[in-house]
Amino acid sequence: MEKIYVVIGGCAAGMSAATQIRRREPNAKIVVFEKTKFVSYGSCGIPFYISGEIKDPNSLIVYTPEHFRKVRKIDVYTQTLVEKINTSTKTVEAKNLETGEKILQEYHRLILATGGTPKRAVPLKKNVFRVRNLEDGINLKNYLNEKIPKRVAVIGSGFLGLEMSEAFRKLGMQVFLFEKMSRVLPQFDEEISKIVEKELISNNVSVFKGVAVEFASESEKIIANFNNTHIEVDFVLDAVGVSPEVELINGTSIETGKTGAVSVNDRLQTADPSIFAAGDCIEVKHILTGEKIYIPQGTTANKTGRIAGINASGGSEIFEGVLGTSITKVFSLHAAKTGLGEEEAKKIFPDVEVETSTSLSKAHYYPGAEKIFTKLIFSKANGQILGAQMVGKDGVGKRIDIFATIIYAKMQLKEASRLDLSYNPSVAPVWDPVLRAINKALQQ
Amino acid sequence: MEKIYVVIGGCAAGMSAATQIRRREPNAKIVVFEKTKFVSYGSCGIPFYISGEIKDPNSLIVYTPEHFRKVRKIDVYTQTLVEKINTSTKTVEAKNLETGEKILQEYHRLILATGGTPKRAVPLKKNVFRVRNLEDGINLKNYLNEKIPKRVAVIGSGFLGLEMSEAFRKLGMQVFLFEKMSRVLPQFDEEISKIVEKELISNNVSVFKGVAVEFASESEKIIANFNNTHIEVDFVLDAVGVSPEVELINGTSIETGKTGAVSVNDRLQTADPSIFAAGDCIEVKHILTGEKIYIPQGTTANKTGRIAGINASGGSEIFEGVLGTSITKVFSLHAAKTGLGEEEAKKIFPDVEVETSTSLSKAHYYPGAEKIFTKLIFSKANGQILGAQMVGKDGVGKRIDIFATIIYAKMQLKEASRLDLSYNPSVAPVWDPVLRAINKALQQ
Repeated sequence: MEKIYVVIGGCAAGMSAATQIRRREPNAKIVVFEKTKFVSYGSCGIPFYISGEIKDPNSLIVYTPEHFRKVRKIDVYTQTLVEKINTSTKTVEAKNLETGEKILQEYHRLILATGGTPKRAVPLKKNVFRVRNLEDGINLKNYLNEKIPKRVAVIGSGFLGLEMSEAFRKLGMQVFLFEKMSRVLPQFDEEISKIVEKELISNNVSVFKGVAVEFASESEKIIANFNNTHIEVDFVLDAVGVSPEVELINGTSIETGKTGAVSVNDRLQTADPSIFAAGDCIEVKHILTGEKIYIPQGTTANKTGRIAGINASGGSEIFEGVLGTSITKVFSLHAAKTGLGEEEAKKIFPDVEVETSTSLSKAHYYPGAEKIFTKLIFSKANGQILGAQMVGKDGVGKRIDIFATIIYAKMQLKEASRLDLSYNPSVAPVWDPVLRAINKALQQ
Repeated sequence: MEKIYVVIGGCAAGMSAATQIRRREPNAKIVVFEKTKFVSYGSCGIPFYISGEIKDPNSLIVYTPEHFRKVRKIDVYTQTLVEKINTSTKTVEAKNLETGEKILQEYHRLILATGGTPKRAVPLKKNVFRVRNLEDGINLKNYLNEKIPKRVAVIGSGFLGLEMSEAFRKLGMQVFLFEKMSRVLPQFDEEISKIVEKELISNNVSVFKGVAVEFASESEKIIANFNNTHIEVDFVLDAVGVSPEVELINGTSIETGKTGAVSVNDRLQTADPSIFAAGDCIEVKHILTGEKIYIPQGTTANKTGRIAGINASGGSEIFEGVLGTSITKVFSLHAAKTGLGEEEAKKIFPDVEVETSTSLSKAHYYPGAEKIFTKLIFSKANGQILGAQMVGKDGVGKRIDIFATIIYAKMQLKEASRLDLSYNPSVAPVWDPVLRAINKALQQ
């Protein structure tokens, strides 16, 4: 009998899984249910579409549903919501959101790739936007094109909040950015937050930190109320983060971990051995601490989707975990991190020290050289490098990955100081900022 | 009695050594002899000064002799050539090249940092330039400013030959590039050479490979003769490489290795225990093969200078060697490598395989995304990654260092495929070219 694989969710994780299954099982039936119109797109590109830097939302799409159907023989159902998983009969119940048509689909192996759903800071509905998937992005862009709003309140200064603030400023809007924590980009250490905040302010974003903001509707306008201050805005972007979309596991033996996301073993199998899970709905292991964390990211979605697909179809790949490597663009800056922040590190490792340094992205005399600020977190006890954070206008991008590799290899400062890194005046100073940061830490 | 350190050579290695000694020995006497007018400059910036991208040659200088004298209390003698080392009396004999004045200087510890000297492909003297130090660069620039030559023959297509070819094209000259090997940039693998050659040709550099060129003087002109072809040029840049400057060790117990460069132990000590050596005059160990190689580089000069200074003044640092990580800029391309090339690897490791891949430097939809070609060299037997070479218009710079770190950590393909690298559409596709290359190799 023909084997049937069902994949719930057609974004990065789901389509990576489906593709791997097809490679390994040329004759299996593979069904993907996706609730939106789109599959296989780069949602991280949405802010650049909002800003107008990318004109066509279709350019964010890697492959269309038609491509998957025709070339890869994968039965992709778009605008189709899975409403229930019946693990006893090994079936899923889905509904076409356009026609209302119901589908009952059996499976031998199921891949759960339901992704994340935006958290809600604001109960208001009218003119409050949340941007998670490409449809959300297109809705917001249509609103911007139609209403040409002038003033926006952005709630949350994580990656999405900051990247969208930049996009709105590029469109000429007044941007009021609200962060309930005491500093912007709170997933980074304080030193980085300060530099990022300066960049926001110098780009005329009004930044309010440690602020509990409330909103009231007033005809077509929204009033943001905080600290006895009242600011009128045209719309609100609610960007306070993402939580795992796990509703479907009710009534199954699949469990969530302490993060609230789906718990999987290192083969990405859930408690139900026929069901694998991947992407933004699962929790993953932090490579350094061994702890389970929830950190939805495109890279991880692609990797875990790939591995879930391989393992569901009889392969045996391990997902080892993440270091939390990430990077965001804030106007002319890139801010990047990998490994543990200072506070996280201090909770787990004894004798944690930090060292900050500033060096140039290229030779001092080479045009376009820009300052890079680096914070290094390491164990004074054994010299192990535990985390790094960098911010600057140039050359941060892939330099953080040198640290990601150093930390993954569990190198100590001394060992890492011996790295033979590339040098040409156009790409680095003769002592690369990475080595300079390490050498400075060694001198402590 | 006050301890006396003498350093021969005031470029990267020498001044790094002198600086480290001063840090560790606040009261020692430190003397540096430098045969040119300049110390502590970035000679890798000379092509950019020739092209006019950098206007002032002084901007290549990190610290002036005055700075070293006043702030670091280091006795820097410029335009002073050391003519002899007497190891029995522990003295050096030097001569001021301007005044002819002779100096006899005793030492307790000596640092040999004499650097390299350009090899000579061309016996002609008039209008033949070799560019090694900043004085050479200034001489050439003065000639260009004064004579405004139109046609140049560049001999050698290594880093210097290519970077100078670009500089000459930027000044509007006709450039004839001669390489005696069958391909340009012969220290890279063939696939990279081909891409680089295309870039040269599309920038109107006339490239002649596998060519034995001879030159004849004819009044103010030079005739390049090869393959029954005769091309008239105004001047020649002889850029066929560098050999270690080791003349001074005659009459001492210091030895050269099979590369012809000064042989040192891993503390950078020569056969004479009072004499340390660093920079472009020494041979270094290849980290992967353990073999001694001669690979003069600014990064290594700085590192070995630092370590020689520390060890000469009683410290104990190890120089572990190099991976040959290097990068050059050729018009709009960067070409970079680390570890072993295919042929080198095959000589030493059994079962060497290669894999090539092309991917984008940023997300496909992000403005400025450019192709990166990657060649990976690895052991099929145990999966160890042995070398990587990359070429492209964007994002090659520090990506090669991810491979340098991978190779240094002796990672296997599988392990490296699990790296958690950074992603944002503005700096990488969701599968970074590094991971894509590794995954493709894993599929072999």
